[in-house]
Parts: sequence; structure tokens; C-alpha cells
Amino acid sequence: MGQSMTTRGEDYAQWYNDLVLKSGMAEYAAVRGCMVIKPYGYAIWEAMKDVLDRRFKETGHVNAAFPLLIPKSFFSKEAAHVEGFAKECAVVTHYRLKNDGQGGIVVDPEAKLEEELIIRPTSETLMWNAYKGWIQSYRDLPLLINQWANVMRWEMRTRLFLRTAEFYWQEGHTAHATAAEAVEESVKMLNVYAEFMEGTLAIPVIKGVKSESERFAGAVDTYTVEALMQDGKALQMGTSHFLGQNFARAFDVTFLNKEGERDLVWGTSWGVSTRMMGALIMVHSDDEGLVLPPKLAPIQAVLIPIAKGKEDNADLMAAVEAMAAELRRRGIRVKVDDDDTKRPGWKFAEHELRGVPVRLAMGGRDLENGTMEVARRDERSKETLPLTQVADRVEALMSEIQTNLFERARRYRDGNIQRVENFDQFQEVLELGGFVYAHWDGTAETEAAIKEKTKATIRCIPMDGQELDADGAGVCVLSGKPSARRVLFARAY
Amino acid sequence: MGQSMTTRGEDYAQWYNDLVLKSGMAEYAAVRGCMVIKPYGYAIWEAMKDVLDRRFKETGHVNAAFPLLIPKSFFSKEAAHVEGFAKECAVVTHYRLKNDGQGGIVVDPEAKLEEELIIRPTSETLMWNAYKGWIQSYRDLPLLINQWANVMRWEMRTRLFLRTAEFYWQEGHTAHATAAEAVEESVKMLNVYAEFMEGTLAIPVIKGVKSESERFAGAVDTYTVEALMQDGKALQMGTSHFLGQNFARAFDVTFLNKEGERDLVWGTSWGVSTRMMGALIMVHSDDEGLVLPPKLAPIQAVLIPIAKGKEDNADLMAAVEAMAAELRRRGIRVKVDDDDTKRPGWKFAEHELRGVPVRLAMGGRDLENGTMEVARRDERSKETLPLTQVADRVEALMSEIQTNLFERARRYRDGNIQRVENFDQFQEVLELGGFVYAHWDGTAETEAAIKEKTKATIRCIPMDGQELDADGAGVCVLSGKPSARRVLFARAY
Repeated sequence: MGQSMTTRGEDYAQWYNDLVLKSGMAEYAAVRGCMVIKPYGYAIWEAMKDVLDRRFKETGHVNAAFPLLIPKSFFSKEAAHVEGFAKECAVVTHYRLKNDGQGGIVVDPEAKLEEELIIRPTSETLMWNAYKGWIQSYRDLPLLINQWANVMRWEMRTRLFLRTAEFYWQEGHTAHATAAEAVEESVKMLNVYAEFMEGTLAIPVIKGVKSESERFAGAVDTYTVEALMQDGKALQMGTSHFLGQNFARAFDVTFLNKEGERDLVWGTSWGVSTRMMGALIMVHSDDEGLVLPPKLAPIQAVLIPIAKGKEDNADLMAAVEAMAAELRRRGIRVKVDDDDTKRPGWKFAEHELRGVPVRLAMGGRDLENGTMEVARRDERSKETLPLTQVADRVEALMSEIQTNLFERARRYRDGNIQRVENFDQFQEVLELGGFVYAHWDGTAETEAAIKEKTKATIRCIPMDGQELDADGAGVCVLSGKPSARRVLFARAY
Repeated sequence: MGQSMTTRGEDYAQWYNDLVLKSGMAEYAAVRGCMVIKPYGYAIWEAMKDVLDRRFKETGHVNAAFPLLIPKSFFSKEAAHVEGFAKECAVVTHYRLKNDGQGGIVVDPEAKLEEELIIRPTSETLMWNAYKGWIQSYRDLPLLINQWANVMRWEMRTRLFLRTAEFYWQEGHTAHATAAEAVEESVKMLNVYAEFMEGTLAIPVIKGVKSESERFAGAVDTYTVEALMQDGKALQMGTSHFLGQNFARAFDVTFLNKEGERDLVWGTSWGVSTRMMGALIMVHSDDEGLVLPPKLAPIQAVLIPIAKGKEDNADLMAAVEAMAAELRRRGIRVKVDDDDTKRPGWKFAEHELRGVPVRLAMGGRDLENGTMEVARRDERSKETLPLTQVADRVEALMSEIQTNLFERARRYRDGNIQRVENFDQFQEVLELGGFVYAHWDGTAETEAAIKEKTKATIRCIPMDGQELDADGAGVCVLSGKPSARRVLFARAY
């Protein structure tokens, strides 16, 4: 507070960073590229976890916990996985410190591990290694396991929530008797993600399949949900992978099928992370601060009594507390901000910064008139209502604001998907930001050439049944060769 | 299943290990000393977390997330902490792998960290380093933060849940304006732990203070809750530390007090871990398997229809499903085990092994008579009841079993606290197992000598207000010197 924040127009990246810090969501830790998620940010992450965890359990999954450390040799077992993935990782080589005799400590050179251990960047290898012992016959399938965990990828350029060395996520790892079942599972979980993002985060997403070069190392197909940030860049919100029999083969996980024959198991994995926190901030917030969807806001309504000097404010406080009690009774998360060391204007700015969806203020005149001022954060509008109407209005605003945020983000997103027919158009439109919906010849060469020339990547090949009409065949914007359908390009986080 | 389990009488340690594995709670992972918590075990841990997390929030705490890795230099900042604690730790020295050109991977020698990073064995140093930026004045205090996290201590001898290299815990780290407030907080959280252990885990605990040599490195006082296992060994269930100003001093965390003077902050930290899972198993279980308190049992009642061969069992199944629905309506977690590939006897043994508190069975004759067999796991007793009485009975059993487990454990514990007056008695009684309540002269030398001779340690100096009467002054069992009060000795996990 106090200092003004960079605006989105001035410098979007700086605005984002300022906002995360000033709103008390997170900060950088003493370890390079790692973050501290502060209580306010963590409360939002907890709310996300609660909703997702319930959905995972409703869809038949159970939680478990697998180790943090992976023997180095495990990474070599699945060839594509090691080629494409496991490079920038934190490596544990020793297991003891000792005093250096001068008040400091040093690593004990005698405590060197025979085999180095890697802090998990993802847990496919560990899980499939355990699944080998858990799966004997078709009766043990499907195995539907999730874990909430911290993982680590030694990123060189980090940004709070969006790309940090350590981050928090859930990773589902399932095993199935047939390919069809495994594909069904990966698509089902992609849909769970999409519903969560649209229904809870209020972020519209496009579901699609990744091109081969953007696919997870070790997967047969990677499904993705993609969203658009306010600066016109795309962000991958989560992925779900059909692993085929790749990890089952690497870790020799077989089962006796109903016919009594031994077969390799089919797998999936799927994950979403604290990256969603970054998307939540970037999609909804404005130059005044965070804008939080009510479903995730730690405080949904703040009540501010505007007391006059040293007068007796007992009646005012009583009216405010009564309203707070009524709102709590209706299941709304409220806070009464009666800190008398801070002025009302400061408090208004503070709660705007922290994205509290609704602010209620009551002063001396309101008390006389039996009214309260009701302000909504999303539209920064306010109205003065009789006390008898306030609770109903606040309750209605919870869903109104939730819906408004989603619709607003969808209008922006939809207004920023452009169909282009040639490469000049492609480059021109890309500069404006947003998704470019264009024909591509399906080759990795063309994909790489487009990325090289424009920094745009194929975000996904959209799945059917969404508003994005695939629009039939055409010719590739770059090569002019035949294209079966349009795909979605964008510059991305 | 199938193979019989080692009994407690034969080999308690082996019984424990067999039980953890066979009941599907956990298993050893591919990384030495680390465990996989399997879904059944994890569901119990989740239930524990839910109850504790709610209590932490009710007592004003908020959650946050701090990094996994700690710069090595942080450990040197608090002198006692480095002396007494941070030795057996996993050390990260490199941040990249590379292909060895032969399908394998090696650690890239060029990617060596300038300063080694330690996987957190506990997070005092990291948190206090962050708190420095968060605390300016008395208005920022108290700071009441908790985190649920994985931590790692490179233990040489490991046992599932009881002592593993990686384990899961919560660690509260709070900052206060006065010493009195910080002491109050540490005792408050010790009481939260004790209530949780007695009320939810059904494990009676003794609250006390640690002797200096058993104290947490860096603490001024360590409070502890101690329980007795069925083999007569004690287990430290959780600790709460009054840190004084030690970490504030080490990390220069000061605040402006109400008088406008700068002062060092006072701290606490407190934690309980997956070790409680081990205690839960060891305190209640028997030679047939787990015995779970209903409050934590993932399945509280299992319903087993005993169908006859190929007959039409529709009526039987309908009656069983109706009962399951009624129990669910009452908030009881039920499972209908209608797997027709397994015989009833096998199922009975399986659910006993997994500690399901209540088993309901219904066969053809029950159907005719309108009855069900109701069996309780804790007493291994059963009764046949009219269907109209079953749901009420099961509901009542939930609290009856919970209470019975606690009372049973308390009787055992109380029967195994012996007062002794001299060292011969001390040694004799110790061999029988349990707590020995004896006079001690208060010196570290005597404490060490007793440990050396008997392997018994001072578990705690019991706090006042518990059933253990301090019993006034006396003379030390070993040295014969004056003793202000009795303390509790035992061999411990």
C-alpha cells in the first residue's frame, strides 16, 4: 500500500509482479526461483484444492503419497521421457552435513550417495515402479490414484506462480485394462479440469490436443486446456495425458486379463498446479488490484464501519456486527474491518487491492437512514440500500459477480480469436495478441518454422463440440500444403 | 491375505511391519528409508489432517507454503540449531542431468550450485528469514502460521511411519510480542494436540516438558505429548517449542513495540507427523489386524451379503442396500462388499485386517427372520439383531467403540506407570515395559548415565494438573542426590 502500482498498460509483466507482492499472495524465497505462498494466497490455493479434490473423489479417485526423491536410473527407463523431459532437475548427491570447526557447516564428503537422487519433476516413474507390485489381474484395475505434491524443475527464468523451480500440484496416475478406458479417463479428467476452471476460477478454456512437439515426453496423446490472459498471451492451464503402454512397458507392469492372458497395462496422468493462481490473477485483475471470483475469495464481503472521531459508535458497531452475523448465517465469508488505526480510504484501497468481491460501508448518516453502501469489486460500482435489502443483495452478488467475471473473460477471449488465411495476416494478427486460428500442414518442420519466425506455438488442436468450428480443410498458412483443419496458435507463457 | 501374520507375542516389531504392509497402509519405496503411503493409509492421514487443520484455524492460525530447500548457510545462523540438529540431511549440489550418449543419464558436472541446498528437516530458519520482512510493528503480531509439508531427515534405521527419511507433518511457526504470549501459544498447541490424540486417535497421552538434553535444538523449552505402545515402549507423539528469541536473534527479526521501542520477537514452533499413524496402529491393533477408531476409519461399517450359490439373491441384496442407504443417511461411511469372486470367510478376515469398526452380515436365514449379524472389531464380539434395531445400534457403536478404544488404552497405560524408589527397582520395572516414574537429580550426567545403563530416557517432566501426582521431593534413584520431583522414564521409539 502507499506506493501506486504499475498499470497493465504501462508494463503488464511488472503489473503482475507488483500485484502478487502487494496483495500479499506470494513472494520470492531465499532460494533462487522458489516462492513463499503467503497466507492470503495460500487460502485461495486451499479453496481450489478443496473443490478439485472433491471432484476427483466423486469420479472414483483416491489419494496417496509417493516419495519426493527418484533414483536417477528410473529416468532412463522410459526412453522418450528421458529424452524430452528430465534435464533441469535438482540432484541430491550427499546425505550429511558436518561442523567445519569454525561455527559453520560443510557437506560431509564421506556421505556421498552411491546413486544420485532426483527431486521429482513429476512422478510417473516412481508410481509405475510401485504399480508393478500392486497390479496382478484385471480385478486390480482400474487403479485411480492422485497425489497432491510439491515438484521441482530447475527453471532458469522464473515468475511467481507461473514458473517457479518448486511448485505445488496434483498429479493423477491411473492404470487401466484397455486403451479405450485409459483414453476415456484422460478425456474425463480434462473435462473435470475445464468445468473447474470455468465454474470456479471463472476462466473460459479451450480444450484440445497437443501437437507432437508440444506433447508430454512419454505420452501418446496430451490433452490440454488453454486460456487467454489480458495481455493477449495464452496460458496452458492443465494437461491430461494418455500414456498408452509406455510406462507399463518401461516398468514391466502387466496384468492377467479376463481371458487369462498377460497384457501390459494402459496408463494416464493428469495435473494442474499453482500456475492456475497466476492465471486467476492475470485474467480478472485490474489496475487497482486483484479481482477474485467469490467462490475462491478468502473474504467474500468486508464490512467497514466509518466511525466519527471519539464519539460513541456503539450503535454503528452493533448495526455492522448484526449485518456480519446475518451474512455469516447465509454462509458468506465476511470480515469486519474495525481497525481504528487506519482511515476508511486506506481500508477501501486495501480491500480493493486484495480483490474482496463486495465491500459494505456504514457511516453515521447511514445509521440514521438505516442504509448501507454496497460496492462490488468487479465493476467498481456502488449503491446505497436499505438495511433490509443488503443481505439479499450481497447473497445475489456472490453469483452475479462470479458469472460476470466469467462472461467478461469470455467476451475478451472470444474477441481475440482470429481466423487468418495467409502468413502475412498471421503475423499481423499475432502482433495484436490473442489466439490465431489457422491452417497448418501437420508437420513438425512447419510448426518449428512458425515458432522461429513469430514465437507463436500451437496451443492445441481444438477438440470437437466446442464453439470453435474446425472449419474443414484448407491450406497451411506457411507452407501452402494441404491442411485437414485449423489449429490454435498463440504466444504463450 | 492368505499367509498368517506374525503375532504380537512372537515378535512385536515384525507384527507391526507385517500389519502395515498387509493392511495396505504403506510400503517401502525404491528410495532407501522412504515410504509410499497407500490409499488406505492415506485416507486415515487425510482424516487426521482434516480434524487438526480445523482446530488450527479455530485457534486463529493460517496456512502458508515455504520452500523445500534451505541454503546451507541458514543452518549456521542459530548456533544451537546447527550443533544439535542439522546433520543427517539430504543435500542438493547440482541442478541438471544430461544424456550420457548411451541411453542413460548422468549429472552434468557443469551444473554445480554455488551454495549447496538442504532439503528441509524442519523450517524454522526459512520461516524466520521470511518473517523478518513481514514483521515491523506490534500490529503485525502475533503471526500465527502453519504449513503442511514433507520434510527429510536421513535416518539410518527406518521403520514405516515411525521413522522414515521423508515424512509428512505440519509445522506451526508463530511470532509474538512477549515471552508470556509465546509460552501461552506453545502450551495451547500442546493442548490442541493432546485433545486431538485422546479425542480422535483414542490414544491417552501425558503432557510434559523435555529435559535439556531431549530438547529441540534452538528451543528454550520443549513441551511434549507421550504415549505408551502395547510393547511397553513410549512414543513421542508431538512436540511444541517455546523458542524464546533465539531464531529472532539469528535472523534479526525485530518489531516496534507499543512504547515505540525496537525489540526482538518471541517465537514458537510445534509439529505432529505421520508418526502418529504408527502410534495409531501400535496402540489399538491386535493379532488379527488393524483396529481403527471410528472417527478415523475410512470405512466405518462394511455390509456383507452372504448369497447362496446361483440362487436369486435380489431380495437379500435389496435388504443389504437398504441398510447401507440408511446408514449413509446417518452420516456413517459404509461399504457394501458384494464381490462374488470372494467367499464370506475371506471377506471377514480382510475387513478385520483392515480394522473396519463394524461388520454387518446378512444371509438367507437372516433374510427370512428379518435380522442381521452385527460384529464389532474392537471386542471381536457379535450379536444378531432385528433389522429395525440395526441402524441405531451401528450408530451407537461408533461412539461406543471410540470410547472403548480410548478406555482400553488408558487402562493399559495407567497399569504400566510404576513408581520406583531405587535403581534396582528402576531396572527391574523397566524390564517389564512401561513408564517408570522416578526421582532424578536434574543433572544431564545422571540422565546420561541412566540412559547408558538402561536405554531408558526421560520422556518428560509431567505438567501439573494431570492424574500423575508429582509427589513432592525425594532422592534421585541413581545418584541419591536431592530431587525436586519425579520424572517419567521409558525406553522409547
